[in-house]
Amino acid sequence: MTFTQSLAAAAQKNDSLLCVGLDPDPARFPAHLQGRPDAILQFCAAIVDATADLACAFKPQIAYFAARRAEDQLEALIAHIHERHPGIPVILDAKRGDIGSTAEQYAVEAFERFQADAVTVNPYMGHDSIEPWLAWPDKGVILLCRTSNPGGSDLQFLDVGGPGIQERLYERVARLACDWNSSGQIGLVVGATFPAEIARVRQIVGDMPLLVPGIGAQGGDIEATVTAGRAPAASALVINSSRAILYAGQDEHFAAAARRVAEETRIAINRYR
Amino acid sequence: MTFTQSLAAAAQKNDSLLCVGLDPDPARFPAHLQGRPDAILQFCAAIVDATADLACAFKPQIAYFAARRAEDQLEALIAHIHERHPGIPVILDAKRGDIGSTAEQYAVEAFERFQADAVTVNPYMGHDSIEPWLAWPDKGVILLCRTSNPGGSDLQFLDVGGPGIQERLYERVARLACDWNSSGQIGLVVGATFPAEIARVRQIVGDMPLLVPGIGAQGGDIEATVTAGRAPAASALVINSSRAILYAGQDEHFAAAARRVAEETRIAINRYR
Repeated sequence: MTFTQSLAAAAQKNDSLLCVGLDPDPARFPAHLQGRPDAILQFCAAIVDATADLACAFKPQIAYFAARRAEDQLEALIAHIHERHPGIPVILDAKRGDIGSTAEQYAVEAFERFQADAVTVNPYMGHDSIEPWLAWPDKGVILLCRTSNPGGSDLQFLDVGGPGIQERLYERVARLACDWNSSGQIGLVVGATFPAEIARVRQIVGDMPLLVPGIGAQGGDIEATVTAGRAPAASALVINSSRAILYAGQDEHFAAAARRVAEETRIAINRYR
Repeated sequence: MTFTQSLAAAAQKNDSLLCVGLDPDPARFPAHLQGRPDAILQFCAAIVDATADLACAFKPQIAYFAARRAEDQLEALIAHIHERHPGIPVILDAKRGDIGSTAEQYAVEAFERFQADAVTVNPYMGHDSIEPWLAWPDKGVILLCRTSNPGGSDLQFLDVGGPGIQERLYERVARLACDWNSSGQIGLVVGATFPAEIARVRQIVGDMPLLVPGIGAQGGDIEATVTAGRAPAASALVINSSRAILYAGQDEHFAAAARRVAEETRIAINRYR
């Protein structure tokens, strides 16, 4: 099964476009987990188990693990998801980007070591920084296109269209992503704070999966996001929420609190599909 | 001492603009190291010890370590460089790039966990993806500007200048890097296969450090690179060679072979300074 197929299957089975982002910050963990050597794994696995029937994907953010020498916990977490919740794809949020031989090493890291089903990749170095990832035909490669942070416009909003034609850099990335996507493995990251730009990207890329962070703690509006990004394919829209779910509760019932927020978010998204 | 100062001091002490890139590929290691659990560390430390008096910096490429669960060997390698060859800065080639809170985690990974003196960063997400790195005032942040791979032109060579003004995206990145560099911590990656573009970047950024990969195995011409990139500041130009040095020899004398190529490269660079 390819990444796109498993994403579509999970979205249909759980009637959900919600991706639960796993950005584990130990400073925000409930007291009973503080100081445990496997606290990151325990926290994330509890969130996963509480939300797996409400999500179409999980998205661990590797930086939170790498900063704490916790790659082993990331490996164990992804293995846990595959074993306990088979069929829910894992998107490794790593935003890697490098040329040929080095990109191959990063792909080994993401797909073989961590057993991710898809990975986020930075497009700044162009097509031959993307190709090595596509050598794993059942894996997904989700390129940064338009990010929702204030500095996202510094490069992504520049006009690259030439005389008389307006084309923003993020639009060009969307167009190139279509050119590079003969194998159907590519998706795009498009931030939720710019619904008009989600709509523009959707117009360019057809049914290509769009991963939209920025819901919840980052303040993106759900109705506008879903309306702008929806498409017929069940795998076409993945809406990520991380902190609003992870840190919904502060005590030993944190996983139940996370489940409540995940369920509310799933329902809010479905209202506009 | 800041990164720029230690780079200048090492360049002067060793009369060298050469950065030795550490991209350890176990398949290319000499037979006597094959199969050792610490082969990556042993190989890289031998290269480091054989070339430390010829280099102004070392640049480990993290992907080669991460693909093989060898973060511990990367930590040990950088500790080895700091202990045995104090004063030679370590540039962690990681090409990270993410927003605020996640960028902070990546900075902890690079600067605290791995004790790197500088790191390579992708500018696609803009100024607030750079700022968190600058919170470590003695560390360097080297942004991708113009890369030497064929796909480098897909985005970096696009004209973003607006009506009547030609400005390539990589030129804009160079200009933005100057705006973002009030603390003097920023450098740029500019590939060696485009000497005219190195010269153009130099013109934009003044004395800012330029890290130039692509010499040696990647075929960049040393005379053209040095002529285009040189500047009065001793820290302004850092020319990286990885595979041509690392794999100069195939047997147990590999470190001596690496030293010979490093020495030749150092001399070839110095001819045109």
